[in-house]
Amino acid sequence: MNKKYKEMLASSFALQIATINLQGAPETRAMINIQNKQIAPHLESFFAKTPDGEIYFITNTSSAKVAQIAKNNKAGVYLYDNQTYEGLLLSGVIEEIKDQKLKDAFWVDAWKMYYPAGKDGGDFSVLKFTGKDYKFYTGDFKVKTGSL
Amino acid sequence: MNKKYKEMLASSFALQIATINLQGAPETRAMINIQNKQIAPHLESFFAKTPDGEIYFITNTSSAKVAQIAKNNKAGVYLYDNQTYEGLLLSGVIEEIKDQKLKDAFWVDAWKMYYPAGKDGGDFSVLKFTGKDYKFYTGDFKVKTGSL
Repeated sequence: MNKKYKEMLASSFALQIATINLQGAPETRAMINIQNKQIAPHLESFFAKTPDGEIYFITNTSSAKVAQIAKNNKAGVYLYDNQTYEGLLLSGVIEEIKDQKLKDAFWVDAWKMYYPAGKDGGDFSVLKFTGKDYKFYTGDFKVKTGSL
Repeated sequence: MNKKYKEMLASSFALQIATINLQGAPETRAMINIQNKQIAPHLESFFAKTPDGEIYFITNTSSAKVAQIAKNNKAGVYLYDNQTYEGLLLSGVIEEIKDQKLKDAFWVDAWKMYYPAGKDGGDFSVLKFTGKDYKFYTGDFKVKTGSL
C-alpha cells in the first residue's frame, strides 16, 4: 500500500481534506496537492524525505478550516484516481505549522498570486497532516484497511 | 447558486460524501452520482422532481458509512469541477431509506453487477441526503456561503 500511496500522492493534482466544523458537522473540500512536484517544484527535495502519511497543505490563515482544526484536530485526507476509481482515505490529525523556518522553506514568491500579502502578511498558513491508518477503496467495490 | 448546483449535480460522475465515523473522526469518499442520467437513466424522471439539496446514493448495507450515519446523521456532500476548480459543499443530514416502494423504484437489474444478492438480498441500501446550507469555492480562492 505504501507504493500505491506514494504514486497517488505524487500524481494527484488535488486532495480532499475532511474536517469537523465548529458545529460538529463534517466538511470536505479539494485542496491543491503541493506534494505534486509539478505544482511545487521547489519542495521536491523536502518531500523526498517526508515519512509516509505526512502530508502538507497551504491555505489562508483566515479560512474556516484553520479555525476548525484548532478546535478539533481530527482529519481525513482522501486521494482519488478518476481513471481506476481507486480511493485512499488516511485518518489522522492535522495542525498548523508555527515554526517560522519551516514556513519560510515552504514559501515561494510565485504564491503571491494566491497570498497577496505574502509569506509574513498574516494570511499564509502551512498545515501538517499526520495519518497512518488507511482505508483503500479498490475501484471494484472492495475496501481494504491497514496502516501505512 | 441553484443553477450552478443543478449543473454540477447533473454532470458529475462522482460526489464526495463526508461523514463522522464511530471514533468521531471525519471521513470522506467518492461515490457514484446516480443523479447523473448517464449513470442511472431509469431515475431521470424521479430526479426531475427532486427538490434542490436532496441527493441520493446507493451503497452496500454492510458498508461502514451506513453504520456511521445511523450513529451520527450529520453529513456533507461536495461537488467538484476539475475543469474550473469550483467546489460546492452542502451541509445537512443523511438517512437510510427504509421505504420498500422507494427502494424498488431505485433498483435496476443492471446493478446486480455491484450487488450480487440483488435488491432484497440484504446488502443494497439507498441513502437520502438533505442539504440546504452551502459553501461555494469559486475556483479563484473565494468562498461564498448561503442557502439553496
